[in-house]
Amino acid sequence: MSYQAWVATEAGAPFKKQSLDREPLGPEEVEVAVEHCGVCHSDLSVWQNEWGISQYPAVLGHEVVGRVTALGSQAKGLSVGQRVGIGWNSGSCMHCRPCMSGEQHLCSEAQPTIAGHFGGFADSVRAHWAWTIPLPEGLNFGDAGPLLCGGITVFNPIAMFATPKSRVGVIGIGGLGHMALKFASAYGCDVTAFTSSESKFDEARSFGAQHVVATRDSEAIGKLEKTFDLLIVTVNVQLDWDSLIASLAPNGRMHLVGAVLEPIPVSVFPLIMRQASVGASPTGSPVDMSDMLAFAARHNIAPQTEHFPMSQINEAFAHVSDGKARYRVVLDADF
Amino acid sequence: MSYQAWVATEAGAPFKKQSLDREPLGPEEVEVAVEHCGVCHSDLSVWQNEWGISQYPAVLGHEVVGRVTALGSQAKGLSVGQRVGIGWNSGSCMHCRPCMSGEQHLCSEAQPTIAGHFGGFADSVRAHWAWTIPLPEGLNFGDAGPLLCGGITVFNPIAMFATPKSRVGVIGIGGLGHMALKFASAYGCDVTAFTSSESKFDEARSFGAQHVVATRDSEAIGKLEKTFDLLIVTVNVQLDWDSLIASLAPNGRMHLVGAVLEPIPVSVFPLIMRQASVGASPTGSPVDMSDMLAFAARHNIAPQTEHFPMSQINEAFAHVSDGKARYRVVLDADF
Repeated sequence: MSYQAWVATEAGAPFKKQSLDREPLGPEEVEVAVEHCGVCHSDLSVWQNEWGISQYPAVLGHEVVGRVTALGSQAKGLSVGQRVGIGWNSGSCMHCRPCMSGEQHLCSEAQPTIAGHFGGFADSVRAHWAWTIPLPEGLNFGDAGPLLCGGITVFNPIAMFATPKSRVGVIGIGGLGHMALKFASAYGCDVTAFTSSESKFDEARSFGAQHVVATRDSEAIGKLEKTFDLLIVTVNVQLDWDSLIASLAPNGRMHLVGAVLEPIPVSVFPLIMRQASVGASPTGSPVDMSDMLAFAARHNIAPQTEHFPMSQINEAFAHVSDGKARYRVVLDADF
Repeated sequence: MSYQAWVATEAGAPFKKQSLDREPLGPEEVEVAVEHCGVCHSDLSVWQNEWGISQYPAVLGHEVVGRVTALGSQAKGLSVGQRVGIGWNSGSCMHCRPCMSGEQHLCSEAQPTIAGHFGGFADSVRAHWAWTIPLPEGLNFGDAGPLLCGGITVFNPIAMFATPKSRVGVIGIGGLGHMALKFASAYGCDVTAFTSSESKFDEARSFGAQHVVATRDSEAIGKLEKTFDLLIVTVNVQLDWDSLIASLAPNGRMHLVGAVLEPIPVSVFPLIMRQASVGASPTGSPVDMSDMLAFAARHNIAPQTEHFPMSQINEAFAHVSDGKARYRVVLDADF
């Protein structure tokens, strides 16, 4: 049972193509032949062991698009040859309270695809059947990879906390943020992009922002006091949190999806006066992912991508690491 | 149009009884003869001008129970002689978006009863008709005052964010916290009290807590990981926020109702992993207050009070200021 994969043997080491062995397919597992796999910032974080969860040798890649090639004896709801996606999680316990409540992404034992498990920068990858998500007809398969982690991460707060009447702000117009603009715009919301890069103003509008604000323009942000029902923060650096909280409407929510490493200081009085909140979330459940994919297919939403052959994985990682991706990199399998 | 009130002429000055003059009653105003008025910690804060909103001379008191004695020409829904309550707000603009949405307590121009307005430590007090709340039959009128600010402040998060299935924690068993225990218990929740004072353990149970934890017992709090759907923080000091956020269940909410003056540090990663949030709120709308009062009457809920004649207002303030109130002080008008 050998297969080919791009392997990092230690933190930050270059990827080398290797032949790996693995066990026979488990009864609940699905094997997927990889066609495309996105590069997410969290691949870089795990590659560098920034979060202390990495295991080496590591095979990264958790925005997989491919076809089912084998099904375990107990795998449900899938068929060989079906086009599927795999995201941040490739398994969960299936019997805890969150799993049984349809919130499998909140399972304490959820299995990240790229830590303690081999991911999608390979010719094949495995996942639990529940986390192997069928892709709907009409989706742009070649570019769909980034929807499976970055996409669901920004779609889920919109689905949970916005309505088409909402005023939504998106902080940071990168891989996640540009998808957030597309989703929030298609959702029918009034959308404002916050970006520190003036070069992105026009592009932010093309992604669906009706309004664009410079993240460092405190005066402009000051004029937005009590404006936003939902502010989605996609960056992982410290910001002027007081100004952002001041821009929340009554009952507004500032929602973090970037793993800001240092605690953020939250002023309580402005939160009280707005009956507001600061929340956060990871990705989404399998059903959330299916809903997101159906929405993306219906509204013709795809991330803006740059493609590299998977054999150029090291060049692709450097490109993302240098902040040059516009806006999301996808590797096409070329084993 | 003169009336008697207990007046502080500058920050922290002792209260002296004075005769004050006032304008004829406005068309939307209601005049209420004060029978009882609670002493809230925010009376002390405004007395000392801790929040920079105070105006002097000041008449404090914003947990008023009394009877309507006069109605402005446009006052709606009230009649002379009716028993009513007045809380933190005594007016709002009535035409902004929050006011028109039934969230008058979030109006930017909401008029605090005790800042820029004369409060309830007087023989009579005025408020806008919308903020003059009818008290239901069956309520314990003598002890109802503290429900009108402290009570609604802790009832509203329960009404917004808990169900009878929820696991609710209450941090700080004082004036607000002991009412939170009574409300959450009557709401049908599984209730845990957090108190730094072991002497309050038994009393916390008598207020409805099924479980009691010492706030400083990090080991005990550590065992409560991923437990609480709603944590109501009633204290205004810095706590071990990391432990408290760790004790939130998936989708849990830590909700602050105490005006912690310094920003609180919120660790983002634990919030993401729980899909959790940190929120806050002030008091409640007139309809929220009516619902809370009806609930209190139906479930026979009253704060545990100590009564002073209003002429002992200075002694009463010292008692509250010294942290001796068990658990809420009410002044009975004796002009």
